[in-house]
Amino acid sequence: MSTLITNVRELITHERTGEGGIGWAALNDAAIVIEDGRVAWTGPASRAPAADAAVDAAGRAVLPGFVDSHAHLVFAGERGAEFAARMAGLPYSAGGIRTTVVATRAAGDAQLDANLRRLAAEMLAQGITTFECKSGYGLTVADEERSVRLAAQVTPEVTYLGAHVVAPEFAGDVAGYVDLVCGPMLTACAPHARWVDVFCEDGAFGADEARAVLAAGRAAGLRPRVHANQLGYGPGVAVAVEARAASADHCTFLTDADIDALASSGTMATLLPGVEFSTRQPYPDARRLLEAGVAVAIATDCNPGSCFTSSMPFCIALAVRDMHMTTQEAVWAATGGGARALGRDDVGHLGVGARADLIMLDAPSHAYLAYRPGVPQIAAVWQAGLVVGHPPIG
Amino acid sequence: MSTLITNVRELITHERTGEGGIGWAALNDAAIVIEDGRVAWTGPASRAPAADAAVDAAGRAVLPGFVDSHAHLVFAGERGAEFAARMAGLPYSAGGIRTTVVATRAAGDAQLDANLRRLAAEMLAQGITTFECKSGYGLTVADEERSVRLAAQVTPEVTYLGAHVVAPEFAGDVAGYVDLVCGPMLTACAPHARWVDVFCEDGAFGADEARAVLAAGRAAGLRPRVHANQLGYGPGVAVAVEARAASADHCTFLTDADIDALASSGTMATLLPGVEFSTRQPYPDARRLLEAGVAVAIATDCNPGSCFTSSMPFCIALAVRDMHMTTQEAVWAATGGGARALGRDDVGHLGVGARADLIMLDAPSHAYLAYRPGVPQIAAVWQAGLVVGHPPIG
Repeated sequence: MSTLITNVRELITHERTGEGGIGWAALNDAAIVIEDGRVAWTGPASRAPAADAAVDAAGRAVLPGFVDSHAHLVFAGERGAEFAARMAGLPYSAGGIRTTVVATRAAGDAQLDANLRRLAAEMLAQGITTFECKSGYGLTVADEERSVRLAAQVTPEVTYLGAHVVAPEFAGDVAGYVDLVCGPMLTACAPHARWVDVFCEDGAFGADEARAVLAAGRAAGLRPRVHANQLGYGPGVAVAVEARAASADHCTFLTDADIDALASSGTMATLLPGVEFSTRQPYPDARRLLEAGVAVAIATDCNPGSCFTSSMPFCIALAVRDMHMTTQEAVWAATGGGARALGRDDVGHLGVGARADLIMLDAPSHAYLAYRPGVPQIAAVWQAGLVVGHPPIG
Repeated sequence: MSTLITNVRELITHERTGEGGIGWAALNDAAIVIEDGRVAWTGPASRAPAADAAVDAAGRAVLPGFVDSHAHLVFAGERGAEFAARMAGLPYSAGGIRTTVVATRAAGDAQLDANLRRLAAEMLAQGITTFECKSGYGLTVADEERSVRLAAQVTPEVTYLGAHVVAPEFAGDVAGYVDLVCGPMLTACAPHARWVDVFCEDGAFGADEARAVLAAGRAAGLRPRVHANQLGYGPGVAVAVEARAASADHCTFLTDADIDALASSGTMATLLPGVEFSTRQPYPDARRLLEAGVAVAIATDCNPGSCFTSSMPFCIALAVRDMHMTTQEAVWAATGGGARALGRDDVGHLGVGARADLIMLDAPSHAYLAYRPGVPQIAAVWQAGLVVGHPPIG
């Protein structure tokens, strides 16, 4: 079964260039053929091959599905009142992340699963066709294990984040908690996960602790990624690069040495501007990273505390407006960049052979994602060639 | 035919208080009855009267439909590439508003009408149940007349904005253009409009010209409103207050005297934070206005140039994050505030007798509009008692 989508005003393919990089292609009056869940052909509509079915894009734009490489979706409870109080200038609730840990531990599997699936469906409806999902609100062996187990039922990109914060039972005994994270908790979680992550920051885990967590994870077959340099300067980026992490995430406070380390490594910088929006912090300096040659991804960081958006278009609008990325850079960061941050080459682009994950916008150009902030513009979504939304008629 | 909506986690009524102000009411486990297009009853679910039909809100929040008191929806063409170039730091396109004037004049009525209706439907789907619509991209008698005539087919809140900018044919002859705006153009437009507006700003119209436009409009039966103090300090707010305008819109650059004038008048300040987002300008100082006792509305300013959002939730998120309004203040500004800016007492609240314009959020609290920026959360919309969206089941 093949489907021809024709009359595409702008087709973003991000096809690989000869040098192995990922370029940018926008074709006027383009077409794309998908077959058996893969991209089979792209090019000018006038040269499109025949297919079993046809969809008229009526001048709309088509781009790769978004790849969200950083999200925390296994949790219970909500913190809307805490958010409102923070915005109103009231003191930050002492509860913070521990509020969510308490609620998550108290929840049954069915409740966690329903919440997770609701958020995953919300993401998909908004064009996110691949997403990563972290544990980190359980902080016991049993609660972390069920978090990664539930996550693995909805995405292959599962990240074990037992080292999110020190569990309350280990207050004052960070070393004891790290032993748990690197020992029995890892043993229980590794079978369900692809990645190991650690929040390397003052107040969470230091450089040596982060190294221990990443090394133990790697020994258990997991690949490293790091929460780095969100709240201040620190060793997170250096640890990530040293561990050959796929990505250092947040990157809000970077020294020149951090930038140099990223630029000369295979570790990319994943920026999470929704967090800065929702906590009123300064935005990361994306231009400094890009101009140094660092590959930049953007992701939602969807979580109930510091950023509860699941909207990649919103993050793109912030990237353009507040991080001065071009609309092209921002769209690549949310698609090809996210894919690279997950070590994936089958998604994030629409080259021939890619998984047929694509978004049809209710707009003629990718620029509308920033030009029309907040407006729902996802007209249809295909995931592995299957229509998720309803493609508009004409 | 009456409908009972029950199991409402948070019901925002904005009912009038005894002193004639508009208060804030959030009831847990609330219910609302609508009948014959009006609100018939609100209160605790346990005391709800019987009704012909019932909708289970399943713990969601219900609030008044948004009232968007500032929008420019009659136009042709689009300026996505100009937006992208501006964000990338390239020089602001010389075309600007005149790009849209050229495209609008060249468009047929059917094209303008289709574009207008598409945007109106988009707004309604996002919870805007009352909106104002301005002319101002025609700038000839015929093109302004058809703009207000088309607008009047979709909303009663039509604003004649012949004085948007000086028409290109009158370059160097502002007085000549003002004569046209106050003469034959007004005569042609007044039958279709309720409001007269003028862009009182350096580069548009000065104080005396604005006074002339507003006075002529009032003589023709129109009520005044003013684009004021968007791009710099100037006489706009003073002119608006002097003319007893319902609202001074933008209010980005205000002196103490401007604030005092607003505070001691019936003219409210309508803030348009989407414009500051999309032009990277500083946001208006909402707190200074609120603390001075000025009534503040927020509106989208949906237009193809400076701000092409039609999302009131996005504007609410900006109001909270970037203008430091509380979530309650922002929601009132987008509902009751917008209604007051249009001189309407039948919308913007859910007191008994109000028009049954209401939004059910896919969330338990109004705070989610800012807590989950960019996420589509409008579960259902009622306009004059009729369901526009599909209310979720359970």
